[in-house]
Formats: sequence, structure tokens, C-alpha cells
Amino acid sequence: MEKLHFDSDYMRGAHPLIMHNLTATNMEQTPGYGSDQYSEKARQLIKEACQCPEARVYFLIGGTQTNSTVIDAILKNHEGVIAATTGHINVHESGAIEATGHKVLALPSHEGKLRVCDLENFIDDFYADESYEHMVAPGAVYISYPTELGTLYTKEELCEISKCCRKKNIPLFLDGARLGYALAANPEISLSDIASLCDVFYIGGTKVGALFGEAVVVTNPEILHHFVPLVKQHGALLAKGRILGIQFMTLFTDRLYEIISRNAIIQAMKLKKIFMDHGYSLYIDSPTNQQFFLLPNSFIDKLRELVTFELWGSKGAEVTPVRFVTDWATSDAEINLLEQIIDNIQQES
Amino acid sequence: MEKLHFDSDYMRGAHPLIMHNLTATNMEQTPGYGSDQYSEKARQLIKEACQCPEARVYFLIGGTQTNSTVIDAILKNHEGVIAATTGHINVHESGAIEATGHKVLALPSHEGKLRVCDLENFIDDFYADESYEHMVAPGAVYISYPTELGTLYTKEELCEISKCCRKKNIPLFLDGARLGYALAANPEISLSDIASLCDVFYIGGTKVGALFGEAVVVTNPEILHHFVPLVKQHGALLAKGRILGIQFMTLFTDRLYEIISRNAIIQAMKLKKIFMDHGYSLYIDSPTNQQFFLLPNSFIDKLRELVTFELWGSKGAEVTPVRFVTDWATSDAEINLLEQIIDNIQQES
Amino acid sequence: MEKLHFDSDYMRGAHPLIMHNLTATNMEQTPGYGSDQYSEKARQLIKEACQCPEARVYFLIGGTQTNSTVIDAILKNHEGVIAATTGHINVHESGAIEATGHKVLALPSHEGKLRVCDLENFIDDFYADESYEHMVAPGAVYISYPTELGTLYTKEELCEISKCCRKKNIPLFLDGARLGYALAANPEISLSDIASLCDVFYIGGTKVGALFGEAVVVTNPEILHHFVPLVKQHGALLAKGRILGIQFMTLFTDRLYEIISRNAIIQAMKLKKIFMDHGYSLYIDSPTNQQFFLLPNSFIDKLRELVTFELWGSKGAEVTPVRFVTDWATSDAEINLLEQIIDNIQQES
Amino acid sequence: MEKLHFDSDYMRGAHPLIMHNLTATNMEQTPGYGSDQYSEKARQLIKEACQCPEARVYFLIGGTQTNSTVIDAILKNHEGVIAATTGHINVHESGAIEATGHKVLALPSHEGKLRVCDLENFIDDFYADESYEHMVAPGAVYISYPTELGTLYTKEELCEISKCCRKKNIPLFLDGARLGYALAANPEISLSDIASLCDVFYIGGTKVGALFGEAVVVTNPEILHHFVPLVKQHGALLAKGRILGIQFMTLFTDRLYEIISRNAIIQAMKLKKIFMDHGYSLYIDSPTNQQFFLLPNSFIDKLRELVTFELWGSKGAEVTPVRFVTDWATSDAEINLLEQIIDNIQQES
Repeated sequence: MEKLHFDSDYMRGAHPLIMHNLTATNMEQTPGYGSDQYSEKARQLIKEACQCPEARVYFLIGGTQTNSTVIDAILKNHEGVIAATTGHINVHESGAIEATGHKVLALPSHEGKLRVCDLENFIDDFYADESYEHMVAPGAVYISYPTELGTLYTKEELCEISKCCRKKNIPLFLDGARLGYALAANPEISLSDIASLCDVFYIGGTKVGALFGEAVVVTNPEILHHFVPLVKQHGALLAKGRILGIQFMTLFTDRLYEIISRNAIIQAMKLKKIFMDHGYSLYIDSPTNQQFFLLPNSFIDKLRELVTFELWGSKGAEVTPVRFVTDWATSDAEINLLEQIIDNIQQES
Repeated sequence: MEKLHFDSDYMRGAHPLIMHNLTATNMEQTPGYGSDQYSEKARQLIKEACQCPEARVYFLIGGTQTNSTVIDAILKNHEGVIAATTGHINVHESGAIEATGHKVLALPSHEGKLRVCDLENFIDDFYADESYEHMVAPGAVYISYPTELGTLYTKEELCEISKCCRKKNIPLFLDGARLGYALAANPEISLSDIASLCDVFYIGGTKVGALFGEAVVVTNPEILHHFVPLVKQHGALLAKGRILGIQFMTLFTDRLYEIISRNAIIQAMKLKKIFMDHGYSLYIDSPTNQQFFLLPNSFIDKLRELVTFELWGSKGAEVTPVRFVTDWATSDAEINLLEQIIDNIQQES
Repeated sequence: MEKLHFDSDYMRGAHPLIMHNLTATNMEQTPGYGSDQYSEKARQLIKEACQCPEARVYFLIGGTQTNSTVIDAILKNHEGVIAATTGHINVHESGAIEATGHKVLALPSHEGKLRVCDLENFIDDFYADESYEHMVAPGAVYISYPTELGTLYTKEELCEISKCCRKKNIPLFLDGARLGYALAANPEISLSDIASLCDVFYIGGTKVGALFGEAVVVTNPEILHHFVPLVKQHGALLAKGRILGIQFMTLFTDRLYEIISRNAIIQAMKLKKIFMDHGYSLYIDSPTNQQFFLLPNSFIDKLRELVTFELWGSKGAEVTPVRFVTDWATSDAEINLLEQIIDNIQQES
Repeated sequence: MEKLHFDSDYMRGAHPLIMHNLTATNMEQTPGYGSDQYSEKARQLIKEACQCPEARVYFLIGGTQTNSTVIDAILKNHEGVIAATTGHINVHESGAIEATGHKVLALPSHEGKLRVCDLENFIDDFYADESYEHMVAPGAVYISYPTELGTLYTKEELCEISKCCRKKNIPLFLDGARLGYALAANPEISLSDIASLCDVFYIGGTKVGALFGEAVVVTNPEILHHFVPLVKQHGALLAKGRILGIQFMTLFTDRLYEIISRNAIIQAMKLKKIFMDHGYSLYIDSPTNQQFFLLPNSFIDKLRELVTFELWGSKGAEVTPVRFVTDWATSDAEINLLEQIIDNIQQES
């Protein structure tokens, strides 16, 4: 029997409509590097969805590349970027930020989130320090939404962080690799809220229905200049840019991005309930498509015979944190089958 | 009327078989970052095609990214990479090599090619210089095949360069962004020759039938260590790696890569003949899919009303060099229509 | 009245014997970049003092430069350097390490020191993590002796760290900007112990009697290749290298480095006693030339009218940590005057 | 017998007055990193000498370090620096510019000099190229005065280059490692001319009477921000900054820099005349302290038994270019002895 997979949200290909549109336009000839009409159409649709007509939109290929290119473009040579210790750029990008010459200034993570008080204190302390010229200046703030741990900032928290950044004159950059899932889980914050609270952010495609692709939205034109040559320099400028354009055009036509994102949340909530109903405890209480549980090792071993998922860190003595991820295409059948498997294991023991 | 396009070989999507295979496997779930079975299959097929079972094969997304990641991985901190002044890395990658901290050591270009005598002299002079420790040491040799100008090394030339590199103990890296077209144009050199003469090279997919993708083949394992974290650090590790795997698996099944490459050469030779038959002169005599002519400006202006193509450099007083590019999908109809357009322009004047 | 100064150990010029030798040799002509006879003599003397005849010795100008050049030379592209959160490279070098492309992997600081258990766990956890190729690999361990907080590793602690590094095959780099003061304060560890426990370290001149200069001692030749071009590339190769040679030749003739280092410790212990006898408490109990106290703000204000010293961090509500630093030239008269000033302030209030 | 030395202008120590002042102030305590009163005094004196009261002046240690720090500070990420192919930054700094991520855009060298027409054409061609976003943008112009080959720009040439840079809005940076010798050789251009024609330049101390040190003068405050943390990041911030301050204070008191520079030119002209009178030909006709001759190899061999000097490049079949360098301290006796040695060799043969 084929196993069930809940390892990550980049295991499948793209939404079928994307595959259809890529195929339908496949033999057309378009100019390169994003200067085609599909990319232009996608940029328009995204600006409308953000209610930010003056924004600039760029399409890059993947998350690590987008983070390092944007952050390198924003920072001055003597500056670093503030992030939570658990932030993707601080942990899981093989030092991509440092490879561009900049320090990640790590602040405490509160279930994946930065706290505005930590942020404010850090910046104040920096400028209060008499030897601040020998220290790395905070030049940007990086947050992700949802965070590495699936958690979400409340609107109030996000507003406070944004306000702090503006008061301190430090750009706020939001990594939205899973932005669709956050928007679906927390209707309190809309895409246009994101656009108005951040200086630059990206809308993740790779994990939300595309083959690959991240749409960078720059709402504060002051912070980013000469971005295209930098994207090229970072090896992040796709020759056949229209492939990115067609994907985002599809995702932002008829609210597809919004609609397919919802499925991941619905299935994640079912998945969470199944584990809780079967007596397992949450490792973190995540409202999004990544779900974290503390499972007994013996149960993990049995479950892994039929289901793939990630251990979250190294194995504990008796229990271990694990991560289950749903996506835009997770089906009721998969969730039901998972429940049945758990039932069976429990009955056997 | 839709214009005819000869601007570049990255204007269309992918070979239909690739689109078919991507679509057919679209809803499958596979592990990420190239650890899937399609990528593994593609690696096997490429190693067979190279007759180099012990090679290591990695899939990256685009040319600039591949060049800078491989070169950064090969070079030591104090070293630079030798290239022809016209080399892509020296001219058209927005300083991607330098952004990784390394100098491009530019040697004279002979219609796009490095000469082994220049190479040998440069290396000898370097070590003969008493202040060589204050200079950038040659740490790798970069050539492309075909070159930026569509030209090809002869087998003898390539063997000499390879021999020189091995004598001097300097890795030879071959940029094969258009490798298929070179192999089709010059049967004297096979893929397994390339594998045995170079230490590392890549097989271009973006310009030869894929949506995107470059297959890096490392035949000398000594020169490259810890490549995966470096690929990640460079933002060049595709999450859904299987998309690269499926594309190269398709291209290297039933010799598709070889077969579709031939078309570009056949059409390019027809295209060359048309221009020559109509009295226009070659700017460079290229045997591959990029063709360069010296055209009168008045003719260029008329032609551009119906056909798109690149001016090669800035406009001259009366004549200007131009580039026409064919690809794996260029049709007889397109070539015939081009001829007709040229006929018409000549008859009108 | 001229104020008393205890701000740092780089406020005076050089030991008078150094000034004498620089002046005596001033009009001689010697070849550049450290190839002169004085530098050669200094290298010999240092190798003898380290009892390590096969070591390689290089002279650089200052601490930050030495740290970033050595660490850049040791690390591979995908690696970072482990350091305590309080380590100089993590805090006070304006991001010099990151500017060379490498992450500082910060571990908890225990009064400035790394603990071997933290080190071992970090390295083990790294390789146990299934996604370690997406993380920055530990490629070197940086410690300083004394630490930023004036504290010292015991011989046992240093041996354990060294043993751990060798077991894990990770080079150990010791920043000895104030090494003379550590050796004077802790006779348990000799210079030859340092040489045998570390793979590379430096003997600080700037803070211990020289105008400037740090002597890098490489005892493990495997870890560092092509160092001279890298020193040049980092802008750290002094043209008139003999100025460094003469200074270190002087410091390592007749044990001058050892002898003058002792004075700083003797005066620091007197200074510590004065504060404690007057009822002030230690912030950290440092055995070296940096002394840290917790002083009432009102007392600080009065003291600062006559004495300069550093606040250690930002001002507290009622008490604030401060740092007093002695050096090779701190005199009895200075210490006595400090005591008198403290007496007077206490009597006035 | 001790040999005569004409290898370079960094073979001796410092002007005796500098040694005197360093010794006289040696035991004073001053704050670090250039915030002392001597550095402040030196900055004032230099601004007066430049007739540029609003300039900002910084002291760095050596030439390579100064070039890479200033250029890194001026350039944006996507930009490179234009220099002559023979420029020091392009040839003899071990890739220090590239190590900061920037390309050196090399233009033809005309006896070491850039021509304004080449400069203008290069910049115009860059922006005329339709793919300029894939190319490295010219972000600064680097010239040296005197050049690597000892030659000098005329005032007209320098004015034209300056005018071109301002028209194109590209900062002009002048490397004045040997500036004193240029000013002494060409009274047509004064220090205040340099200050008004360049955006940033430096006054070399290392080769003109100091132990070491380069004074960076920024006359266009727009081009350079946050320079101190960058200097620190580059490892170029001397802890005991007053040592630089005292040296430049001495050099710019009573026009010492100007006076001692003249000696090198006077002696260089005598030296040139000796070689020409003895029938040897010039390799380049240099008006400054570096003199280049084409000497027969047999003569070189005999001369080298008694005199040290540099071969300029690799040895020719019969004749080889050589370089002789005078400095601020070259004596009549040395020049006379050189003449006598040449006489003797000629008589013997």
C-alpha cells in the first residue's frame, strides 16, 4: 500500500488549473525575464488583491532565494536583519543571509513570533550603547506569517511591530511562504492589511498551489532600488519568466489562491481534532496547516509504517514532537484514512 | 499579424512530452530537494549518457545560478576563475561571480573561445611573478560550449585545454547552457568526451526543451565537496526537486535531448543560407543555433516590423550586427515565412 | 588636574624598549611584507616560547582583522564558527565575520566562557538533524583567553574543549588579544600548553605593550593554506612588516611580554581590593586586568569627575556595572591616587 | 658591503620627526579609534591643506585596505568600479575588491592612465545596451596619482575625468598612496585641486614618510555614509588611533609632507639622468619617484650583486624592464654610489 504523506506542503505538483494554463500557452513565444504579458497581468492582479496600485511586484523562484535577495537589497553594508531565533533565515537556509555579508540579529522566539517589546528594547539598547559603531546595526526586521511553528500574529501584534518599525525607521519584511494558509486561518488580517503594514513581503506560491514561485510585493519604494540586477546577480531571475507569471495569474484569478488555501486549514483542523480525540497532546497549538503533536515513541514507530511525517528535532526518551502538514490538495479521504490507521493502532495495543 | 520571433532560445515553454509528464505525475507526492525517484532516475540516465557511472549529478534551475554556485564551490578564497572576455560570467551575469568574492580573470576572446596558448602563458606568468601572492591565483577555467558567439571548440582545441588544465592542476568547468546544440552541430565531440575532458560541466535544459533546469555533472569528485548546502545557500535548491528530475528524465529518455537539439541546427543552417543567398554577410560564422549577420540599418528597420531579433551591441552608422536564434521547436513554416518576408522587403526596395 | 584613565588597555603607546628599537632601526632598509630579518627573528623567538618549532607564525595588525582573516581562512563556504554569545566576534566587530560570508553560531556564555557540554551537544545535534544540509555546519570553534569578561578557562576546561574539537575534527581558534594577561594570571596554563591545545591562536600585542600587532601562531598546518594572499586580500598585510617584527622581537626577548603582563595583574588585584574594601561588590569575579564592579549611580557620577572608565552596558536604576582596566604600564601612583579619590568621595558623603 | 636598495618606497621606517613625536607622546593615555586630540588636530591640518573645511577625514592603515573599504562603502550591490587594467586594485591586491562582492571594470591603460574618452564611451555603451540590467553597472571611477607606472595625469586630463564623472553622476576616487610625490613632481595640480576634483581620495603616508597610514579625505559627503562601522568591519580601525593622528599631524605641520616628498623627485631625476647618460633607455618616461628602464640582462646580473631593485614583469630574452624607486630619504650618497657602481660595471666590460 502507498503510504500517506504529511511531511510537507511541497510534495505535490501544482493546482491542475496551473498545469492547464502552462500547457495551453506552452508553445507561445514570449520575451524573457518577466517582461511578458502574463507576468504583467499577474502583477496587476496582485496589486489589485493587495489594494495597493502603486506597489511593485517581482517574481522569484523559491523562499531562500527570495529572503536572501530581498534582505541583501534592503540592508546597507554595516547592517543586519532582526529575526526570531527560530526564523527560517536564522536556522534553515544554510547561512544564505550571511553569505551575502549580513548578520542575522536573533531575538527570542515566542512560539515562533517576535515580541514588539523585545524588538523595541533591542533597537533602543543598540543606539544607547556607546560602542554601537562596533556593533551590527539593525537594518531590517524579518518576520514570517505564519511562523516556522505555524503560529500567527494577531492583528494587534502585527500592527504594533509595524508601528515600532516605522517609528525606528527600519523596514519590515514579511516572509509569506505560506501566506495563503495564514490568511485563510485568520480572517482578521487581510492581504491589503499585510500590504499596508509591511514595507515588503512575499506571497508564497511553492507551498500554496504553484510548482514554484514567490511574488515579492514592495509597498515602500524607498527601501529597494536596482532590484532587477540584484535578482540576476543572485541567480534568481528566471529566463522563462512567463512561467512564474502564468502561475500567479492563475492563482490570483477568481480568488483561486484564497480558495485553495482554505482547504489546507479545514483539513488541518480535522487532523488536529483526530489526534486530540485520540488522546494525544499538542506540542504547539497551531491554527494553520502545520500541526505539531507530542507523540509516544512506540506510537510513532507504528504510525510510520503507514504514514510519513517529520520528527520535530531529535527523538526524546519517551515522547517526541512531530509535525504533520496539510496543503491545498489534502483530501477528506487522506484524513479519514489517517484516522482509521490511528484507530487501528490504538485497538491493537 | 503575430510577429516572427528569433530573439532567443528561451521564448517557448517546454517540449510537449515534458508538459505531459509533469501533468501526469502532478498529484503524486514525492519528497523534496531532489531526493525523489524521478530525480534519481534522471541522474542515472545522465550518467549513462555520459558513460560516466561514477559521476555525481545535481539539478539546478538556471545558468547564472549554476555558474556562480559551481565556481564558488570549486574556488578557494584567494582564487579567481579564468574566462574569455566575452564569457557569460564576465559580461552578462550582473557580477554574480564577484558577488561570491571571486575575480573573473579575463583572457582574450577569439570569436568567443579561449586559446590554450593564452591560458598556458597566463598561468605560467602568474607563478613566475615574484609578487604572485599579491595577485589573484587562477583556480578554475571556465569555457562555454557553444560560446557566447555560437562558435565551437574543435576536439583538438578542447583536448588541449583539458590537457593544459590537468597539467596545471586547475579544474576545467564547461558551461553547457546550449550543450545540446553544440553536440548536434559537432558530432566530433560526444557527451562522453565532454565528461572525460572536463572536471565539471552542465547540460542546459532551459534553452534546450525544458521549462528550466541545468544538470551539473561532476566527473572529478576531488574538486567539489559539500555541494548541497552550498546550493541551498545560493538559493538554488528547488523545493519540488522532482520537477527538475521529471524534465531531465524525459530529455534523457529515448535520446530526446539529442533529437530535439538537431532541429535547431537544421533550421539555423537554413536561416543562415537564406540571409547569405539574399546577399547579407555573416558577422561571425557560427555552426550552431545562434546566427550573427551584419545587416544594413534600413533593412533592419523594415525587418523589425515583422520579425523580432536582437541587435548585437549598439547600432552602427550604416550596418549593425544582429543575432537570430533558432531552437528545438523552430518550424519549417517559420523559416519559410522569414524567407518570404526578406524577399518582399528586397522586392519593395 | 589630568584625569586618571582606566577605560581600556589600548590608551598608551608601546613599551619604551619597543620605541627604542623602532627608532634605532628606523633608517635601515628592509624588504617588505614580513620578509625582513626582524620578522624572521620574531617568528623564531615565538616558536621557541611556544615550544613548537614547526609552527608557522604571521603578524597582523589588529584583533578584528586577525579574527576575520583567520576564521575566513579556516572555514569552508558552508561552515560557520561557534562562539559564546558574548564573544568579541559575535558582538563587537561590526559584523566582520559575516562580511566574509560566515555565520557566527552563538552558544550560551557562562561568564564569557563556552562550556564543553554545550559545544558537544550542539555539534551532535547538528549532525543528528535530518535537515542538517540546510543548516550552517560548525567549522571552527572560537574562544578567547581571557574572555570578554576577563574570566579564564581552567586547564581542565581548556583541555576538554580541545579534546572535544579534536574528536569532532573541528579546528580550535583561540583569540589571545590579552593573552599575556591570562598567562600572568593563571600560571597553570603556559604558552606551550596553548600551542599544543589549539590549532591556531594569536598572541596579542596591541593591548600588551606594542603599538599594535597580533602574532598568529598556526600549530596545525592542515587547517590553513594560502594564508599570505588571504591576509593581503583582507587588507591586513603591513607593507613595512618589519615594524611588527621589531615589536614582537622585542616582546619575546628576555621574556619582556611575560614580565610586563604581570604588572597589569598585580595592579588589577590591588584595584579590585580597593573597591571591595570600600564596600563595593563585584559584577564578575575576574582574575585578569579587566575588573567589573556594580557601583551606585551617585558614586559613579562623582568618580567620573576625576576618573574615566566604561559603563558596562546601559545605566541601571540605582546601580550600574562598570569596567576598570589596568595594563602593562599602570603605576602604583595611579592605583594609590584612585584609592585616595574613592576615600574622598566616601568621606564627603 | 651592504647593498644599495631601490626596490620600493616602503623599505625605511618613518621620518625622524614622526619617531620623535611618537616617542614624546608614548606614555600619554588617549581614547581609542581616532577620537583622540592628535587625530583631531591632524584632521584639521589636512582640511586646511586641502582648503576644504567641510571635508571629512579618516585614517586607515594601508593602501589595499583603504581601497577596498572606500570602494565597498561607495558602491551599491549591483555596481562595480572602473579602473585601468594596470590599476593596483585590478592587479596587486589579491582580489580585495572582488572579496567585497564587486567587479573591477577594467578599461585600457595608457601608460597607467585612464583616458576620458574610454571612460565616457564605456558608460554610454553600458546604458545604451538593452541588457544593461544583466551587466555590472559602473558605480565609481578609480584612478591613482601617480599611476602604477609612475606617470601623472595633466591638470587638463584630471579635470576632464572629473567633469565626466560629475556629468555621469559617478563618484571619482583617487588613490594617493604616493600623492606627495605626484604633487612634488607636478606643481600644476595642488592638493586643493585634488580635493575639488575628486569625491574622495587618500593621502598616502606609508610610502611618504610615515611608518604606515593613509588619510582618506571625503569631499562629497553624499557618497559615503556609516563609514566608521564599515572601517571596523573591514578590520581597518586602529585601536590606538592616535598613532595615525600623530603621524599625519607631524606630516602636515610646517609642510613636512610637501618638503620631504620633493627629495624623492630630485633624487629620481638624478637617477634617471645617470641611467640615460650611461646609455640605457627608458621603459616608461616617469616624472615621479618610480623610474623604469630597459636594461640588458647581463648588466642586470652584475648590478644586482651590489644593488637591489625590481624586475618589472618576467625576464626578457636580452633586455628586461626594471624599476628603481627613490623615497623621501634617498640620499645624495646613495645616488652617487649607484653612479659609481654603474661606471665600474661599464668599465669592466
